[in-house]
Amino acid sequence: MVGGGPGAFIGAVHRKAAALDGEMDIVAGAFSSNADKSRQQGAELMLDPGRVYSSYQEMAEREAALPDGDRIDFVSIVTPNHVHFPVAKAFIEAGFHVVCDKPMTTTLEDAEALCRLVSAHDVVFALTHNYTGYPMVKQARAMVNSGKIGTVRKVIVEYPQGWLATPIEREGHKQADWRTDPKRAGAGALGDIGSHAENLARYITGLELEALCADVTTFVEGRSIDDDVNMLVHYEGGARGVLHASQISIGEENNINIRVHGTEGSLQWFQEHPNWLHFRTLDGPEHVYKRGNDYLTEVAKHNSRLPFGHPEAFLEAFANIYVNAGRTIAAKLAGEEPGAFDTDFPTVQDGAYGVHFIFTALESGRQRGWVDARYSAPV
Amino acid sequence: MVGGGPGAFIGAVHRKAAALDGEMDIVAGAFSSNADKSRQQGAELMLDPGRVYSSYQEMAEREAALPDGDRIDFVSIVTPNHVHFPVAKAFIEAGFHVVCDKPMTTTLEDAEALCRLVSAHDVVFALTHNYTGYPMVKQARAMVNSGKIGTVRKVIVEYPQGWLATPIEREGHKQADWRTDPKRAGAGALGDIGSHAENLARYITGLELEALCADVTTFVEGRSIDDDVNMLVHYEGGARGVLHASQISIGEENNINIRVHGTEGSLQWFQEHPNWLHFRTLDGPEHVYKRGNDYLTEVAKHNSRLPFGHPEAFLEAFANIYVNAGRTIAAKLAGEEPGAFDTDFPTVQDGAYGVHFIFTALESGRQRGWVDARYSAPV
Amino acid sequence: MVGGGPGAFIGAVHRKAAALDGEMDIVAGAFSSNADKSRQQGAELMLDPGRVYSSYQEMAEREAALPDGDRIDFVSIVTPNHVHFPVAKAFIEAGFHVVCDKPMTTTLEDAEALCRLVSAHDVVFALTHNYTGYPMVKQARAMVNSGKIGTVRKVIVEYPQGWLATPIEREGHKQADWRTDPKRAGAGALGDIGSHAENLARYITGLELEALCADVTTFVEGRSIDDDVNMLVHYEGGARGVLHASQISIGEENNINIRVHGTEGSLQWFQEHPNWLHFRTLDGPEHVYKRGNDYLTEVAKHNSRLPFGHPEAFLEAFANIYVNAGRTIAAKLAGEEPGAFDTDFPTVQDGAYGVHFIFTALESGRQRGWVDARYSAPV
Amino acid sequence: MVGGGPGAFIGAVHRKAAALDGEMDIVAGAFSSNADKSRQQGAELMLDPGRVYSSYQEMAEREAALPDGDRIDFVSIVTPNHVHFPVAKAFIEAGFHVVCDKPMTTTLEDAEALCRLVSAHDVVFALTHNYTGYPMVKQARAMVNSGKIGTVRKVIVEYPQGWLATPIEREGHKQADWRTDPKRAGAGALGDIGSHAENLARYITGLELEALCADVTTFVEGRSIDDDVNMLVHYEGGARGVLHASQISIGEENNINIRVHGTEGSLQWFQEHPNWLHFRTLDGPEHVYKRGNDYLTEVAKHNSRLPFGHPEAFLEAFANIYVNAGRTIAAKLAGEEPGAFDTDFPTVQDGAYGVHFIFTALESGRQRGWVDARYSAPV
Repeated sequence: MVGGGPGAFIGAVHRKAAALDGEMDIVAGAFSSNADKSRQQGAELMLDPGRVYSSYQEMAEREAALPDGDRIDFVSIVTPNHVHFPVAKAFIEAGFHVVCDKPMTTTLEDAEALCRLVSAHDVVFALTHNYTGYPMVKQARAMVNSGKIGTVRKVIVEYPQGWLATPIEREGHKQADWRTDPKRAGAGALGDIGSHAENLARYITGLELEALCADVTTFVEGRSIDDDVNMLVHYEGGARGVLHASQISIGEENNINIRVHGTEGSLQWFQEHPNWLHFRTLDGPEHVYKRGNDYLTEVAKHNSRLPFGHPEAFLEAFANIYVNAGRTIAAKLAGEEPGAFDTDFPTVQDGAYGVHFIFTALESGRQRGWVDARYSAPV
Repeated sequence: MVGGGPGAFIGAVHRKAAALDGEMDIVAGAFSSNADKSRQQGAELMLDPGRVYSSYQEMAEREAALPDGDRIDFVSIVTPNHVHFPVAKAFIEAGFHVVCDKPMTTTLEDAEALCRLVSAHDVVFALTHNYTGYPMVKQARAMVNSGKIGTVRKVIVEYPQGWLATPIEREGHKQADWRTDPKRAGAGALGDIGSHAENLARYITGLELEALCADVTTFVEGRSIDDDVNMLVHYEGGARGVLHASQISIGEENNINIRVHGTEGSLQWFQEHPNWLHFRTLDGPEHVYKRGNDYLTEVAKHNSRLPFGHPEAFLEAFANIYVNAGRTIAAKLAGEEPGAFDTDFPTVQDGAYGVHFIFTALESGRQRGWVDARYSAPV
Repeated sequence: MVGGGPGAFIGAVHRKAAALDGEMDIVAGAFSSNADKSRQQGAELMLDPGRVYSSYQEMAEREAALPDGDRIDFVSIVTPNHVHFPVAKAFIEAGFHVVCDKPMTTTLEDAEALCRLVSAHDVVFALTHNYTGYPMVKQARAMVNSGKIGTVRKVIVEYPQGWLATPIEREGHKQADWRTDPKRAGAGALGDIGSHAENLARYITGLELEALCADVTTFVEGRSIDDDVNMLVHYEGGARGVLHASQISIGEENNINIRVHGTEGSLQWFQEHPNWLHFRTLDGPEHVYKRGNDYLTEVAKHNSRLPFGHPEAFLEAFANIYVNAGRTIAAKLAGEEPGAFDTDFPTVQDGAYGVHFIFTALESGRQRGWVDARYSAPV
Repeated sequence: MVGGGPGAFIGAVHRKAAALDGEMDIVAGAFSSNADKSRQQGAELMLDPGRVYSSYQEMAEREAALPDGDRIDFVSIVTPNHVHFPVAKAFIEAGFHVVCDKPMTTTLEDAEALCRLVSAHDVVFALTHNYTGYPMVKQARAMVNSGKIGTVRKVIVEYPQGWLATPIEREGHKQADWRTDPKRAGAGALGDIGSHAENLARYITGLELEALCADVTTFVEGRSIDDDVNMLVHYEGGARGVLHASQISIGEENNINIRVHGTEGSLQWFQEHPNWLHFRTLDGPEHVYKRGNDYLTEVAKHNSRLPFGHPEAFLEAFANIYVNAGRTIAAKLAGEEPGAFDTDFPTVQDGAYGVHFIFTALESGRQRGWVDARYSAPV
């Protein structure tokens, strides 16, 4: 692991998610650019001190030098956004597979460079757009794919939060600090959560952006990054969309949710009640699909651990990204084909798509108008 | 009543709403432009056949000729949209007060003419934007007014329906028929329900539109009017908004709802569960305010009929428009001042504002961009 | 109307419910045993003062003496419970049809006498167990009847309220005053709301009580009537039940709700969100049936006024009792057969059944054990 | 670990829960009474084959013989119920601490023997009544303790499931097989889930049972164990209760939930939406407390891992039992005092209480009446 030192939120989440199924262990890390903090974190995790490094460069180099079977199988990158790229680059060039937090990079140039690096070095790269790890999100995707709701006409995807409604970045809040710093975060609400919303919509519907018109706002005085964004979307093929994300919507916690309306039915899913998926048609009662049941599609069952009524939540969804990526990496290491469901995780191309989306939306906001949003990442 | 003949949905709603509190009776009507149908409806309502008319012109003229105390006190207009104006004009010029369905007119010119007529003849004019009649909507407005959520930053107002997802207007569906006819309806989803959404947001927040950017779509092939609209909104003073309305969102029934986020708190209300209002702050648990309780504001209690837990719904909200307008009319007829809560109903200026909003949004859709949305109706 | 004077809650509800559909008018009343109050109420309702009476005896006598076509068609009894019987008796003996509030009487003797009077005088008698008037309750009943959930195994019916959690009857609360007075109310929570719960369960399932074991409690010090009751139930045929009702359950408003589990499915309905009915089976997603849709059974559609998504609530359900009873009375007056759905209202036998249930439960509580609960009312 | 071989549901849950925080590792096991299956499971878990045993006796003996620091710190018992006792006895006598699934034993005699063994050998014993591990359950307990709802009057605790509505035990369903076998399970719904309900109510309220009256039913033909139970409860001090549990309630998944009504407020919690706790008072709006917020009590925050809006669920609650017990064991092994929150897990006395409850309820069912339910487990 690179990043995830003392007090970091997302590093601990990655570790718990990775540990959940007992299929992978953390054995080495450069947890902080501060060597003491890195050592402290390594000690807390009971790691071999010899494999706790003071920098990612040192880690990439020394792990690569270890004999086969001893070195790490992949690196997990959980630093602030602007460090994703150099770390990923270093490890990919050293031959390692990568699991990386999102948004992938803070420039499109870096994102595309990463796409090319992944191809060139033939490594597995997984981006933790964790919300697509939820079984009922996979159920939704499968239902759209199989035509259950007909042709998609309208997508409403929201990601409201309220935790940045006041300038807590000026009160020593570590999370708020880097996430509102344009240098380290790249973009604000758009990058941190808007990109999740876009990814969720695309994952479920398969729709590609054609054009968008964004209204990007900074509400909190003195903040130099967006904290609220509302967007109209045209998808290729004629579907319409509304996407809004906010970090100043007091009372909202982490309410990412989506509604997809097709010509024959609709789907609705709320992350804060993630075990249920609502399916509605023109002429029948609403159906509430519940995780863990036999009537679900195979992919939803495959990505589920507990029986119905024993709720799963955020960590299990996050763990699904890790488990699927991990199995794909293991298959690669073993020279085998991964299982049918194992490659179901966001890729480096998804990451580039997301970065392009972020900059397109920022540009639309600056221009106050519709902009072309079509994009195809280098493979 | 003018309009509301056999099979009309909204006419029957108006009659039930008006009857609910026993404060007004229907005594005369021109229920259809077809004299037989008008007579049939009059007979069903057990009206004096002498006061069932074959046309609104005849009704306005003959009722005006009745002696004081015998003639109607006001007219209720429940025709298709394009007939609102001539009917209202005829009755206002004959000296009658008016309750009129929305959207008020199909042109802005008519809407403004109506504003001037109302002033010139000094009559009471109430527009049935019925969703503002809900007690918990009034509670929300009172809470915004009293500063409970601080300064409003963001408004999300939605009005999704699904009933026009297929071309039922071509299958003999009477409601769908006129509502999808540009001549009779003026606009589609925008006029029929988008105008309710705009009105609800303005009623609760008091915010005036500054600019908007709309994406107006017709999804159903062969339909010549919009059936879906998504919109970004700038309010005067800096608040941002998202407004979307749809009649092709399968699975949605009549789900008008609103979220208002301020600098200190937020409010959320859903019409389909209208007895509850959600209030949230930065640092405390969510509060669920429930209709009928002592802890509510006076205006919410005043507009409520039943104890807590005995749910009220659509008809009571609609009735509140009638009762308040009716008491204001009664006060006017008696030469008295109406009560403090009696004038709480949408006015002819609100109607003009709504018509302006509809045409501004259509224009924005045509231009594919932001347009100025500021408007002040003639008083 | 007898009862329903100034400040009475349920009288006003009855009047609004009766008025809703414009099929009946209130034309006479003895609204209070205090002649002044009766006159005051009559004036407020704009009744002919000659038909506002100082006592129910006077009203029964003088209305009966009016010529055909002039006299009332039926009487609505909304007095405290202990007065139901003498009023009903007087009007039945005078040949009038009756709509009566529940619980029907305060003794089983009176209840059975009323059954015999109704038969002897061949009048229509409707008891306002209003919760069975909800369309989705009727939908539930129809689904049980048609075998959708197989054979019923378990019924859980609850009626929690919290408004009597403190001794407000000693603080001048008129409703609380008579409802906690054993002389006027007969029983407390059991009579006031427990009887609704029993009736709702029997209406939906058709199951008859075989035995019950009740725990009857008075929590508020100084109160001389039960304010909480919990009950185990055996139904004839082997189904089991749990019924609990409470007036001291702080936070609960009027949360009557029911779950019915059969061998093949289950149903769930909550009065506070009355437009939805939940249907679940062994091996499929939950189905949420929503009022106003074409896919519902005929009886649910017949008892519904508004389109889907335009919520109906308490008053409409109450009105359904009135409308159905009213149409049955009208048919009787006209010497015709009532329509297929018109006789769907609670009868005098249902009333006697409820009174027997109340006394059986009280007896079980006193004995601290199971008691026989089988009962068949005289026809 | 003892038990938890291939295909066992609860064994896998215990392992994931134990792994979640990286504070404990599984290093040895006797996973099945079938040596092959035990080996197979050990291999799957990548354990040292030398520490995968063919019987619990062998495991207890050989682990005890390992040098200090090498042997296991505690054993986790996840066998069918009737094996809990002999396994626990063997390990306690060998000096090991124990985490044991519930219900603790299949006889009260065994339960009390276990209490005495735990005392005699001075070991830590934790019972996995996992539902008390939820942060919002701990919040509820803290609020009751601090007087937020006054004196408790009424408790309604439910645990409905539907998965045994048909005789799946006769169709090769492994879970259903042993859980419906009186020899291996001891009791049916009562033991499996009724005991959770009792424990949850006692954990939150601190109330002790005084008497109960149970209706115990077997609905599915051919089943020789209860699959449904409804119960009236008297608590010491005057509170009343309703407890019902069922495995034949089709449509219910794992819906354990509780409502506690006091003299000043009430609390409500649903396991299927576990991040929210509802608090209501006599005269204010409902409060919805949400996991992860600063306004919660210390114990709720201490037992929480993720920020608000990032839902936690079943596994985290289960993990809390493990973490707290684990830290208490670690402190004991280190000769230190455990932390203030570490001893917050169900004990062997709670287990005996639960077993006594089960047999008391069965006895009440047989007698068809109220029975004394007071009990104090040997310390």
